[in-house]
Amino acid sequence: MRRRGRAVRSWPVGDEATWPVVGMVGGGQLARMTQPAAVALGVRLSVLVASPEESAAQVVNDPVVADEKALADLRAFVAGCDVVTFDHEHVPPDHLRALEADGVLVRPGSAALLHAQDKGVMRSRLTELEVPCPRHRVVASPAEVAAYAATLGTDVVLKTTRGGYDGKGVWLVTPSTPAEVVEEPFRAGVPVLAEERVDYRRELSAVVARSPHGQAVAYPVVESVQRDGICVEVIAPAPGLDDDLAVEAQRLAISVAGSLDVVGVLAVELFETTDGRLLVNELAMRPHNSGHWTIDGAVTSQFENHLRAVLDLPLGSPAARAPYTVMVNVLGGDLPDIYPTYRHVLARDPGLKVHWYGKGVRPGRKVGHVTAYGSDLTDLRERAWHAADYIRGVIDE
Amino acid sequence: MRRRGRAVRSWPVGDEATWPVVGMVGGGQLARMTQPAAVALGVRLSVLVASPEESAAQVVNDPVVADEKALADLRAFVAGCDVVTFDHEHVPPDHLRALEADGVLVRPGSAALLHAQDKGVMRSRLTELEVPCPRHRVVASPAEVAAYAATLGTDVVLKTTRGGYDGKGVWLVTPSTPAEVVEEPFRAGVPVLAEERVDYRRELSAVVARSPHGQAVAYPVVESVQRDGICVEVIAPAPGLDDDLAVEAQRLAISVAGSLDVVGVLAVELFETTDGRLLVNELAMRPHNSGHWTIDGAVTSQFENHLRAVLDLPLGSPAARAPYTVMVNVLGGDLPDIYPTYRHVLARDPGLKVHWYGKGVRPGRKVGHVTAYGSDLTDLRERAWHAADYIRGVIDE
Repeated sequence: MRRRGRAVRSWPVGDEATWPVVGMVGGGQLARMTQPAAVALGVRLSVLVASPEESAAQVVNDPVVADEKALADLRAFVAGCDVVTFDHEHVPPDHLRALEADGVLVRPGSAALLHAQDKGVMRSRLTELEVPCPRHRVVASPAEVAAYAATLGTDVVLKTTRGGYDGKGVWLVTPSTPAEVVEEPFRAGVPVLAEERVDYRRELSAVVARSPHGQAVAYPVVESVQRDGICVEVIAPAPGLDDDLAVEAQRLAISVAGSLDVVGVLAVELFETTDGRLLVNELAMRPHNSGHWTIDGAVTSQFENHLRAVLDLPLGSPAARAPYTVMVNVLGGDLPDIYPTYRHVLARDPGLKVHWYGKGVRPGRKVGHVTAYGSDLTDLRERAWHAADYIRGVIDE
Repeated sequence: MRRRGRAVRSWPVGDEATWPVVGMVGGGQLARMTQPAAVALGVRLSVLVASPEESAAQVVNDPVVADEKALADLRAFVAGCDVVTFDHEHVPPDHLRALEADGVLVRPGSAALLHAQDKGVMRSRLTELEVPCPRHRVVASPAEVAAYAATLGTDVVLKTTRGGYDGKGVWLVTPSTPAEVVEEPFRAGVPVLAEERVDYRRELSAVVARSPHGQAVAYPVVESVQRDGICVEVIAPAPGLDDDLAVEAQRLAISVAGSLDVVGVLAVELFETTDGRLLVNELAMRPHNSGHWTIDGAVTSQFENHLRAVLDLPLGSPAARAPYTVMVNVLGGDLPDIYPTYRHVLARDPGLKVHWYGKGVRPGRKVGHVTAYGSDLTDLRERAWHAADYIRGVIDE
């Protein structure tokens, strides 16, 4: 029988193989895209899902349908795993600490993960570490927002410290923002962070992976193109990025991973300011949308390196395989049935790579992504955008 | 409910996705390595396995444990699939014809697959098609072997027409071969094929994929290095292969695929003779060991193109991504526990790609493969062989 929290060591030893089991809490597309890496590494991926129809549940053996907010469910799930990791940041921190007290290998650990779960904790800690961040303050009321905006001399971005993603939980406040909008963030019942609105040239992302014994690898720094708070395109590497700035972003991400004792993938989302500085926007401690390009574009995908890291296996090379790789998210559009357009796109571009998440199409929902790689960036972007737009029905030729 | 044999058309249409289901009979490493391609394409892979611990059973949702030799079991399995394909050639031809009569989409079809199941049928048909093959004759007794050897003026290779693989079911007969060895093949109860022993420079393999509507793509022709009848190494493309000969091999494989109405991947194993000709040795109608390099080395893997073909989706580019890709099989050696050596190999070579089959280690059993790609062939071969030999315990530094 499998024991909870034992060292990861159950490799093939006899007539039938016993492989280490990595438990991933959450059944979204990140868990789904981890499965191909697990297949190659010989790892068994077990997922805790909310429904047997979820993205990852479709593609792994024996998905566990359970409630990730219930400690008893989590305990039952991890009893079948050698190490536990995450598809998202939504598991309650108290539960993670309880699992650790049980002796379970939780990677990243609860103390590290808290910085991806709570933006207030993240900002405080990064400031202590002298990591460059936007100016910020925890605010308790609209009046404090106004007062802080006055001291900053900029517009203000309000963020709930917990529970936000993909532009949710974020409000821009300008002098003309109606009072009722400024009140909204305070209704969530969690602390609210006010940050200066940064003048930035573009958003970058530095993805790294780190092992328990401290080995770390840094992927090329990418440009992340956002629309309505959602990442829509990633260009690897970020075109025209100054070499020193690229190295600084990688160094910063590796340093944060080490300081916070992150195990697994860490994505550091950054602003490249109009005056050429880097400021940390967000942290994610799991495979990240800004790293999906690595499946087709890097020697070792972020999903494989996440698994290697949580198993404390040596990390793989993060090097790019082509001069440029462009990833464009496919968001659900107006077409409820995307099969005909998908088929057309495959026929039009035999070099395009598609990745479907097994999700029903709803407007704005990330249902897949496409990747193109090569040396002609203009051509790659045209191909990837054409495919994504055609599939979702935005264009018809 | 899913209907048997309906057109492949169940793409996401509503709130929850319904994807087409590809059924694969057989739970070996070929089915296992098909799963990552299925994950990306959004296809659900269902496998019929003999045991829940088999290689592919570990990595798909809800594997079906059943007897592939029992028509009732096959019928129950295919009822949950939109199209059926194969991990191997061992399903009885009569059963496949029965499924087709039921209206099931069987790809490749029984009529095509017979040429990969029966070497006598294959040789007759290829000869009709004027495809170059070794000289051959069906023989009924050791006396007929001796008589045929005398007319050939060469040593003779005996093959049982059905049931052989990886060097099993093959005997070399020279003038000094003991009589009891020559009698062996006739004990299997199936017709025996006698072929001239070809003087060859090396073995090549031409892998192609073909769709129901006739689209075909040809991968670069590779060199396949055999040891004791088992493929141990594949070099893509075959080093120093004459351009005309490479094109001839691809043309030949596409022509055979068309003539036999193959749907899916067809691997044509060839001899490059010492006098510079190509002769067809064997056919396989499924992803093939000589195509494993495509996972890491080609734009579209053979597994993805096999799925695209059986679903009648447009095929992906078969182009190589690097000047050379070297794949070396990891055969079980003397080490029962390969975890420490596996770990060492990952640490030594961060650019190496490993693929484990989830199988227990037994001497000589294919338990995985490693791939290296780049431009320096000598270096790539050294890296791949070192990894494979170190993992299995043949070398210790």
